Amino acid sequence: MYHIRRDHSHLRWSRKIPPVLTISSGETVTFDAIDSSNGQINKDSTATAVSSLDLSTVNPVFGPIHVRGAEPGDVLKVEVLDLETADWGWSAIIPGFGLLADEFPKPSLQIWNVDKNQGYVSYKDTIHVPLRPFLGCMGVAPATDEDLSLVPPTDAGGNMDCRDLTVGSVVYIPVQTQGALFSCGDGHAAQGHGEVCGTAIETAIKATLRFEVCKGLSWVTSPHYENPPRVLKGQDSAEYAVMGIDGDVLEATKKATRGIIAWLTHFKGLSQSEAYMLTSVAGNFHLVETVNVPHYIVSMSLPLGVFRSNG
Amino acid sequence: MYHIRRDHSHLRWSRKIPPVLTISSGETVTFDAIDSSNGQINKDSTATAVSSLDLSTVNPVFGPIHVRGAEPGDVLKVEVLDLETADWGWSAIIPGFGLLADEFPKPSLQIWNVDKNQGYVSYKDTIHVPLRPFLGCMGVAPATDEDLSLVPPTDAGGNMDCRDLTVGSVVYIPVQTQGALFSCGDGHAAQGHGEVCGTAIETAIKATLRFEVCKGLSWVTSPHYENPPRVLKGQDSAEYAVMGIDGDVLEATKKATRGIIAWLTHFKGLSQSEAYMLTSVAGNFHLVETVNVPHYIVSMSLPLGVFRSNG
Repeated sequence: MYHIRRDHSHLRWSRKIPPVLTISSGETVTFDAIDSSNGQINKDSTATAVSSLDLSTVNPVFGPIHVRGAEPGDVLKVEVLDLETADWGWSAIIPGFGLLADEFPKPSLQIWNVDKNQGYVSYKDTIHVPLRPFLGCMGVAPATDEDLSLVPPTDAGGNMDCRDLTVGSVVYIPVQTQGALFSCGDGHAAQGHGEVCGTAIETAIKATLRFEVCKGLSWVTSPHYENPPRVLKGQDSAEYAVMGIDGDVLEATKKATRGIIAWLTHFKGLSQSEAYMLTSVAGNFHLVETVNVPHYIVSMSLPLGVFRSNG
Repeated sequence: MYHIRRDHSHLRWSRKIPPVLTISSGETVTFDAIDSSNGQINKDSTATAVSSLDLSTVNPVFGPIHVRGAEPGDVLKVEVLDLETADWGWSAIIPGFGLLADEFPKPSLQIWNVDKNQGYVSYKDTIHVPLRPFLGCMGVAPATDEDLSLVPPTDAGGNMDCRDLTVGSVVYIPVQTQGALFSCGDGHAAQGHGEVCGTAIETAIKATLRFEVCKGLSWVTSPHYENPPRVLKGQDSAEYAVMGIDGDVLEATKKATRGIIAWLTHFKGLSQSEAYMLTSVAGNFHLVETVNVPHYIVSMSLPLGVFRSNG
């Protein structure tokens, strides 16, 4: 079994970064990835750690791995075999970052105790967010000789922050350059679709991935993924949702987010910042309606199972 | 029990349309709603019926109902108690309408046999779309004296086309005018989040709804909804998905749609138009990532359970 260590990290997407490992199609690799703050936030941190974050070193990814035979036009199939988070994680409102950045200018930090036996993280004894670990970032080196930022995802994958890429998922990423040069990182213990405040439950993670080169799929031009049937816990299935309706889809997402934050502050006793962070780790955006011009509907739903007392 | 008949239809949102019924908070009403073509498409229709649709009479809604005591600033709570579709439905590509209107200029029509005992509609013997009936349109009269089109939804609800508003759902709509003046229509036997081609499985529907006026919720400024735990069928839980990644959210939705259409044509033997319509009735948009500037990710997922042979 191959292993990628924490010191095999890089901070840009580039096809000029030499691979730290070369494997054949069909082989399995484990990754030991530090959290997205790159160790700048620890269990005892407070909001001041958020204000003083050195953003030039955040979001490290681990690799790259050269996969023999992978060429532009191929697809790299990545099977997520195992994910093991640390026993704690963090969420933050980082000034200037997040969907409602203008409305939340102050830093906040929430440290979570991640108890893998319980299957959820607790918040104020009355809120329980189911664990659903995934890698926020999985991608291959770009076609260009330029270095690219790790923040925006591209058709080569990267910082996709897709909550559905959990254990059992299969991800298909279009290869851009010889050997694919795959890297990953950004462990999340849980996150909703949208990651609205800009952070999930960020955590260090150990990931086990299997790689395969697929030929003849040149029409796959962006990441695809396939998920097995999932056993949903009861807490996932009842929901409360708010619609955002607007002629601009992005504004509709913001309206839906503001609406669910209002609901959480009126009915669940959370502060605005607490509600915003909860929405980020447990709320899900659905693009409900895209054709009834000139208005679009985005809804933000929260699984109601998160609201229950301990015991 | 109160009843709203098919001839109680109207074709604009207006607070000047006199109510056909006045009820008290807590009462239940049944609606008999013709399909969204207003009877222009029947079981034997072909694509020529789509070309010759009289668009001035489509999307009728049924009502309005005056609810005693409902005032602007209140919320009208609507419980969906029962929905009964007809035994057939239709989907169409209507030129000039739909998310990819520019790419699908030709009309298409699909007539579906809706067998309520089976629980799904079949397509080519190998595709089975689970039934999940809902009212595409539920809304209240607007605050303005102007007549408004029935096509775009607003904060007063209307043509929301939200697949999650099925039996057991509770919808909260902000009241805009004295008595609320609620109407509904646009029966759907199944639809995915997004309704990308512009139509669901359109069908006549009988709906039973219970109404309640809620005071003190003036901060509810757009439709909210609450869903009970749903028993998901196995076919809903495995999925194949394609990401659309772009700096513009709407373009990301289009890319995801094109991607899943490409997958359906390459792997499932569907034509482009067939794939587009299947995506509309069974595919779901998720707003995966909204914060990794400058790129957004929208994924379109298809439940893999729709692909199985009869018997």
